[in-house]
Amino acid sequence: MSEKAFQDYYAEEMSYCYGCGRLNEHGLHIQSYWDGDETVATYEPRPYHIAIPGYVYGGLVASLIDCHGTGSAAAAKYREEGRSMDSKPELRFVTASLHVDYLKPTPLGVPLNLRGQIEQIKGRKVTVNIQLSANGEICAQGRVIAVQIPEHMIEAL
Amino acid sequence: MSEKAFQDYYAEEMSYCYGCGRLNEHGLHIQSYWDGDETVATYEPRPYHIAIPGYVYGGLVASLIDCHGTGSAAAAKYREEGRSMDSKPELRFVTASLHVDYLKPTPLGVPLNLRGQIEQIKGRKVTVNIQLSANGEICAQGRVIAVQIPEHMIEAL
Repeated sequence: MSEKAFQDYYAEEMSYCYGCGRLNEHGLHIQSYWDGDETVATYEPRPYHIAIPGYVYGGLVASLIDCHGTGSAAAAKYREEGRSMDSKPELRFVTASLHVDYLKPTPLGVPLNLRGQIEQIKGRKVTVNIQLSANGEICAQGRVIAVQIPEHMIEAL
Repeated sequence: MSEKAFQDYYAEEMSYCYGCGRLNEHGLHIQSYWDGDETVATYEPRPYHIAIPGYVYGGLVASLIDCHGTGSAAAAKYREEGRSMDSKPELRFVTASLHVDYLKPTPLGVPLNLRGQIEQIKGRKVTVNIQLSANGEICAQGRVIAVQIPEHMIEAL
């Protein structure tokens, strides 16, 4: 995957997100890509992202699913409109609802893989299902309902 | 509220959680308390906990709800058993599922208030509903289903 990540296309003022903004120097810098009709991302938690010793903090798992979800929603909407992510007008999404089922403890110390499926695109709303895996096993199943940010709000930034 | 927070009662090996562990030096150090039959916590996001400029990162909102939920679940279970949180055996909870509805953008730069209600205690499972407010307005509504960690897992730590 040598292409640009979804988040690399975000305009500067939209790139300070703690989860995925390239300009947030403290942030997680999540980067999401297409893999066929699915979206993928990989993240290796920091040593202090602990729930109980040896396992990944659930809030981080939720954060990864959240940002991979909104990124996937934007990419899916561009694809539906048949245009590239650097074309205008800019499409950005925020999370309306986030659901995570923690299926098993997520081991700390290995890369985590996220894989998303676009369940539905309906007007300004995109629903994305996401699995988070470690060592090839699904540890969490997430669902993000993302809504497109109103143009006037983007312009105000 | 001069009493100890729920999380202050956690044994050392359970106190490295990034969200609420007092021994995680990088963590958020969320502290939860009873307020009558409800549970409360306050957290002021760091300046870099950004979603879009001026607003709080949704993954942080989810993290606050998550840790306040598992802490509230433990406190509720102790209370149901009619014993204090420093009595044995130790009751600790992890998140089975987390749901967050983002009702409006959460402003950055003010303290966030969490308020939880114990919806149900059923065996090893506790359901907690949580509202997150800023400037007196509810910005997110969460629901945590927490399950009690098996004794053998606590002993193994």
